[in-house]
Amino acid sequence: MQNRRTERGTFFPVFWKIDAHYVLMDFHKVFDVPAEETVDIYVEGEYNVKIDGIAFEGSPKQIVVPAGKHKINIKVFNQANVPAIYVKGKTIVSDATWLVTFEDKEWIDETGKASDISATKWLNAGSSNFNSPAQLPSEFMLPTRKQSAVSTIKGKNSLLVDFGKETFGFIQLHGLSGKGKLSVYYGESEEEALSTEHCETLDRVDVNTQEKKDEIMKLSKAYRFVNVQCDEGVTLDSVSMLYEYADVKERGSFTCNDEEINRIYDVSKYTFELNTREFFIDGIKRDRWIWSGDAYQSYLMNYYLYFDNETVKRTTYALRGKDPVTGHINTIMDYTFYWFLGIYDYYLYTGDQNFIAQNYDRMKTLMDYVLARRNKDGLMEWMSGDWIFIDWAAGLSKKGEVSFEQLLLARSLETMALCANIANDTDAATQYNTLAADMRKKLFNIYWNDTKQALVHSRVDGKQTENVTRYANMFSIFFDYFNEQQKEQVKTSVLLNDHIQKITTPYMRFYELEALCALGEQNYVLKEMKDYWGGMLKLGATSFWEEYNPDKKGAEHYAMYGREFGKSLCHAWGASPLYLLGKYYLGVKPTAPGYSEYVVEPNLGGLEWMEGKVPTPQGEIELYVSTNEIKITGAAGTGVLKFSSRSKPVCSEGNVEDKGDGNYELTVEKEKSYTVNYN
Amino acid sequence: MQNRRTERGTFFPVFWKIDAHYVLMDFHKVFDVPAEETVDIYVEGEYNVKIDGIAFEGSPKQIVVPAGKHKINIKVFNQANVPAIYVKGKTIVSDATWLVTFEDKEWIDETGKASDISATKWLNAGSSNFNSPAQLPSEFMLPTRKQSAVSTIKGKNSLLVDFGKETFGFIQLHGLSGKGKLSVYYGESEEEALSTEHCETLDRVDVNTQEKKDEIMKLSKAYRFVNVQCDEGVTLDSVSMLYEYADVKERGSFTCNDEEINRIYDVSKYTFELNTREFFIDGIKRDRWIWSGDAYQSYLMNYYLYFDNETVKRTTYALRGKDPVTGHINTIMDYTFYWFLGIYDYYLYTGDQNFIAQNYDRMKTLMDYVLARRNKDGLMEWMSGDWIFIDWAAGLSKKGEVSFEQLLLARSLETMALCANIANDTDAATQYNTLAADMRKKLFNIYWNDTKQALVHSRVDGKQTENVTRYANMFSIFFDYFNEQQKEQVKTSVLLNDHIQKITTPYMRFYELEALCALGEQNYVLKEMKDYWGGMLKLGATSFWEEYNPDKKGAEHYAMYGREFGKSLCHAWGASPLYLLGKYYLGVKPTAPGYSEYVVEPNLGGLEWMEGKVPTPQGEIELYVSTNEIKITGAAGTGVLKFSSRSKPVCSEGNVEDKGDGNYELTVEKEKSYTVNYN
Repeated sequence: MQNRRTERGTFFPVFWKIDAHYVLMDFHKVFDVPAEETVDIYVEGEYNVKIDGIAFEGSPKQIVVPAGKHKINIKVFNQANVPAIYVKGKTIVSDATWLVTFEDKEWIDETGKASDISATKWLNAGSSNFNSPAQLPSEFMLPTRKQSAVSTIKGKNSLLVDFGKETFGFIQLHGLSGKGKLSVYYGESEEEALSTEHCETLDRVDVNTQEKKDEIMKLSKAYRFVNVQCDEGVTLDSVSMLYEYADVKERGSFTCNDEEINRIYDVSKYTFELNTREFFIDGIKRDRWIWSGDAYQSYLMNYYLYFDNETVKRTTYALRGKDPVTGHINTIMDYTFYWFLGIYDYYLYTGDQNFIAQNYDRMKTLMDYVLARRNKDGLMEWMSGDWIFIDWAAGLSKKGEVSFEQLLLARSLETMALCANIANDTDAATQYNTLAADMRKKLFNIYWNDTKQALVHSRVDGKQTENVTRYANMFSIFFDYFNEQQKEQVKTSVLLNDHIQKITTPYMRFYELEALCALGEQNYVLKEMKDYWGGMLKLGATSFWEEYNPDKKGAEHYAMYGREFGKSLCHAWGASPLYLLGKYYLGVKPTAPGYSEYVVEPNLGGLEWMEGKVPTPQGEIELYVSTNEIKITGAAGTGVLKFSSRSKPVCSEGNVEDKGDGNYELTVEKEKSYTVNYN
Repeated sequence: MQNRRTERGTFFPVFWKIDAHYVLMDFHKVFDVPAEETVDIYVEGEYNVKIDGIAFEGSPKQIVVPAGKHKINIKVFNQANVPAIYVKGKTIVSDATWLVTFEDKEWIDETGKASDISATKWLNAGSSNFNSPAQLPSEFMLPTRKQSAVSTIKGKNSLLVDFGKETFGFIQLHGLSGKGKLSVYYGESEEEALSTEHCETLDRVDVNTQEKKDEIMKLSKAYRFVNVQCDEGVTLDSVSMLYEYADVKERGSFTCNDEEINRIYDVSKYTFELNTREFFIDGIKRDRWIWSGDAYQSYLMNYYLYFDNETVKRTTYALRGKDPVTGHINTIMDYTFYWFLGIYDYYLYTGDQNFIAQNYDRMKTLMDYVLARRNKDGLMEWMSGDWIFIDWAAGLSKKGEVSFEQLLLARSLETMALCANIANDTDAATQYNTLAADMRKKLFNIYWNDTKQALVHSRVDGKQTENVTRYANMFSIFFDYFNEQQKEQVKTSVLLNDHIQKITTPYMRFYELEALCALGEQNYVLKEMKDYWGGMLKLGATSFWEEYNPDKKGAEHYAMYGREFGKSLCHAWGASPLYLLGKYYLGVKPTAPGYSEYVVEPNLGGLEWMEGKVPTPQGEIELYVSTNEIKITGAAGTGVLKFSSRSKPVCSEGNVEDKGDGNYELTVEKEKSYTVNYN
């Protein structure tokens, strides 16, 4: 996945360590077999098969297992691809309950036979929907479906094809013939496709055929426009594409009376669909890489659209790689911290303790790496090899100790404490809690400025800088690090203060608007959404961008990184309305792991009505909200609907509790529906 | 290499972690190019090429580099095989001076371009004799040559083939035809080949051909005898083999007046040749694995026969694998220590500082692993997952803290101190020296027993055990840990004491005889050699065995590990006379790294005359010694010939110094020859 980036035809892999799979794996499971059974075995790799420690000759494709309790081991070596097994008997089948290790330590001592497998760490085998021996994991590809162009302009030796909107997949050239070269120039904009010198991606094809042939490009790519240029002597009938997509299910939804918001929601959904692939990637045109900061936001959007746990877990594993840790995740300090935060959210939304148990050792060693890089004052500061990113923002200082990084460390330590408890590592939990509390104290002691009523951006040479930026301030709101007074102060002094440097990426707008929503500013945020995302739509966007600065004009919007078409016009982090509308307008959020408890605090933010669904581990919470009616259907666990009303609300299906000051609460039971009339 | 073991047709890989290669590598070198040149590029993997940071389109097979100073980068991804490059221009060529990394950290920041490659650790690229683009590293195979059987006995549907001596390679079946199955049963002995039920290795072939065909077995194997059994309807003309060997050069030699010793030397040489493959392996029939304890002895034999540094380095790297350390090398505590000791010797014999520098980080992390596993008294003691091997010896106790393991740790720490100094890690050097001194002190405080005049075997529950074994005692002699008085005490109380458990493996006989040689007991050792290795020869051995117990009879000799033919009859550790004769009879040993200084202390041990060569980094030291004449030719560095004489020695080419008490010394200069007449 990290090797599919190309830049004008050049292979462009990542600049950090890529770990290979373990090449030698032992898989095992103990079965209690009711009657003798024949078991088919398919393996990717060289292998042996043992029953109760006794090996079969050769690499058998079928074995007979007698009745009784038996341990089946399959040991596989595969350097080229991940060792994989497919086992199919009546009761003996391969699935996620098999255990695996890369070192079984089953040695033989001088007494002839002995072993110390108790010393071996067994994990659950990875598994996915490979439900036939013909589906080889090593040959996995996402599904595709055919798509046609919406318009094609034929020129002399050229075709300019428009697919109508941003899309992704394999270009198919139809009726190719002659002898010579052909180039395919891709463009997220028409300007990019036409710029044969500066478009970001391209393909070159050698044509040499008398008979007309079709050819499919090897690598799927992102584009709306495709500009095909042929040598004299090469002809081509038409161009179509195979749209490549992840097989995930839309479970969340949102509609309201405002058509612009509906359009923003739909384009967000499509943007997110395009960036949800084998993993959650940053953007489909350029990097196509897994970036931790981007992935962290995708996880959150995912909880309100797909609730696809597998993609979250895969992405989390892929980002982390193996020990030893030789650098920050993606080389970026903040991205290491987002990795921890993503696990915190994953547990809160899904309640999946097994993932924590499987992953805890890697969390610990990554945190060891982080803690070993604190400076003499116990703060995170740039060290050789680190990239302090924060955001794409002009002139953002990374000098000294940046407050934002300390804040993320504090939150990461809180995650570690939580996970240490789940993994029954109670001593570590205590340590992490102490460290976390200490970091939070430091954050306020060092960076809070009473005059500025804000956390300052950084400390340099032991002194607070004058600079206030939005980052640490907005996170401290939704992390609940500020007290109520500080929250109100920061809202005025930072969030709604035009003198503080503005954010131009949807990436940090995500958090900025989240902070404002957490402060109850849904009306303001709705206007911002319409301005910002609506602004992109007005410019013809069919998916949301990596960056949007309303001050720019025309093709200026396409430039970034000093390159004319450097900007990604379809970036996962552009899809945050999915999250904001689900969590802060429909107002659904888990308050205990896996939605065993949750709250629903709808906020119309100026809309007349809205309706939608929010997925949980056990079905969707359904909601309709207008100014005088709320309809809700519960899913997993127990929910509390919180709302305010000028009149006493009426609900025939449940008991509305009066919490005083016009605030009311209704308990929402699993799979039950309620209608509340209120004002 | 670790996946070529089979047991009766079953794939039998190692039970410890196998690390894969780094799949994404950046290679670079800065060239000062006198004139524009065209450079051909061949790569195993997907790749890009950059000059001064600017990438070419696609993956070019040829580039033009302008005159001047230029940095060439080639970044390669290859999951299936090790990323490899072959570059050939006039001056721009691939070789060991290129640098590599698995994380270049060349990131781009918001200013458009920046990087922090200073944070990247670059190592020298691995390289070998792949001197044409057609020789792909991924397709490397050892060379082979055809060998014929010395006798074949045809039976009904069978052939019993004898190759005359232990050998190794690919069996070729000639003139195969018919339809049915054919089995090849391999035997290091005739008994084994004939035992179709219990021979250790076999091949099965499906035959289905009208026309006569030849077929070569896929995996090379060890055998002297091959028993081919065919189904009715399958016929076969004859069997030959392709002998597979490592392309190393014999540089050392030894001959003397005793024909039995000459035969022992020759069979040792052949035994070692068979076990010297891509790496130094333990034995060719069964494991074919790289075991650290076995390899350590092979390194020492190698210094007196091939002086092949590449095989030592490859084996050292292969044993170590990558971080993180998850277990002892080969899971064996002692084997971790031998790995350090091997590096000590490698440096002493070769003087190769670069290897230390390239390898030092891995030495440190392995030592970190070891030190973290000391018990509360700072001693090495069994922990879950550890195998304490020492030797194949009946009833050897591994309980409590075994003296031998503490001794090996002390020596390993001394190696770390030496290498830390070479790597300019002076603080660490001081620490390691302190730790080493402390361990040596503990070794004597805890285990030395004045009554027994020996180091005892172990301490259990804080108390010395009554048991005295040879291991720690013999190592303390040639490590020079004992004082002269202790050495003499131990010689009598342990080494020459028949009440102390006898050693039955050539593995530990190696050290036992070395200790006796270090005490000047060459006459005794010569007799032991003739008894022990001569004993195997008398039983018809054509290579030396994994274990030899003179008390056993007939086919009993072939059994081990509870299996009838479990014993390896060609085991590297059987070849130790190579080392003993070179180091303690010819008496040549380096006293400073890379033979910059060395001593020659010939000891006939009862022989009338002997002659031989000992390789050094710069040619061979040649020696002829009889009771009245010594002829020597120097090689690298400066040597000191030490000998004693009843009369005043005469040497016309150099100045013989009288050291008193009948001892004399002659300085031997590089490439000069000397003849000394003495008595």
